[in-house]
Parts: sequence; C-alpha cells; structure tokens
Amino acid sequence: MEKAVFYHAGCPVCVDAEKMVLDYLDTSKVDVEVVDFNNDASKINEAESAGVKSVPALVLNGQTYHINYGASMEEVKNG
Amino acid sequence: MEKAVFYHAGCPVCVDAEKMVLDYLDTSKVDVEVVDFNNDASKINEAESAGVKSVPALVLNGQTYHINYGASMEEVKNG
Repeated sequence: MEKAVFYHAGCPVCVDAEKMVLDYLDTSKVDVEVVDFNNDASKINEAESAGVKSVPALVLNGQTYHINYGASMEEVKNG
Repeated sequence: MEKAVFYHAGCPVCVDAEKMVLDYLDTSKVDVEVVDFNNDASKINEAESAGVKSVPALVLNGQTYHINYGASMEEVKNG
C-alpha cells in the first residue's frame, strides 16, 4: 500500500481538491493522510522538504503534485 | 461511472502527472480519457471550455484540476 499525504490549509480550492483526492484515488492502492496546516503547523517543514510550494498539494510515490492553487507556503506560514 | 479527461501536451511535467492519474485514480469509479494536444489539437476548444488554463489538467466531475504546471494553453496553441 502506497502512502500519500494531502496538504491543505482549508481554502476553498483546497476543499475542492481534497474532495477529488478522497473520492477518486484508489484506496486499494493508496492510503491518504490529510494534513490541514491550520490544525497541524508542525507539518509545514515536512511538506516543504517534500517539495510542497503551495496548497493544496498531494505527495504520492515520491512526487509532489500541486493541484490548482489556493495559497503559497509563505502565505500559509504567515497565517 | 464518472468520465474524466486528462489533457496534456507531452511535456515532462505532463508525463509525471499522467502516470499518477492513470496509476492511482480508482478505475471502478472513473473512466479516464487521455488527450494529447500534439495528437489532437481539435480538443483545445473543448478543454478551454472546461476551464483548462494550462497542462497537465484533469477534468473530472465538472471540476478542472491543474496538476503542477507544464505549459499554458497559449503555449500549447502556439505549438
């Protein structure tokens, strides 16, 4: 089972992307953890290390996929 | 079965995104058509009507998801 992390910050674009990821990714192949930086700012470093430049973003199989654009990581860090 | 269309233009970013889409979307829920504008420029209008601004992009369930950034539709049209 592949592990994926979906990072977001609660923005409307994030919510749309989260719905797609949770509704349509194949749960027999991938286990998706959802991280909302509003609830868990400690994951910001982990996300940036994985190459996340903006939210929403999906990290899966060593790749980072920015799905549309809600906010930059700078904006996330500045709250 | 939901119908999705993945639009791309053969760019490296497109290839990475295509692999994720084809490998991890749940094929029991969604049937993905892949359109490469290099092979089918007639689909450019259809894509733009669906809100595609850049490639790669996935149109699914009435929403358009731009996955990372390979090229703008202007660049696609200008070859």
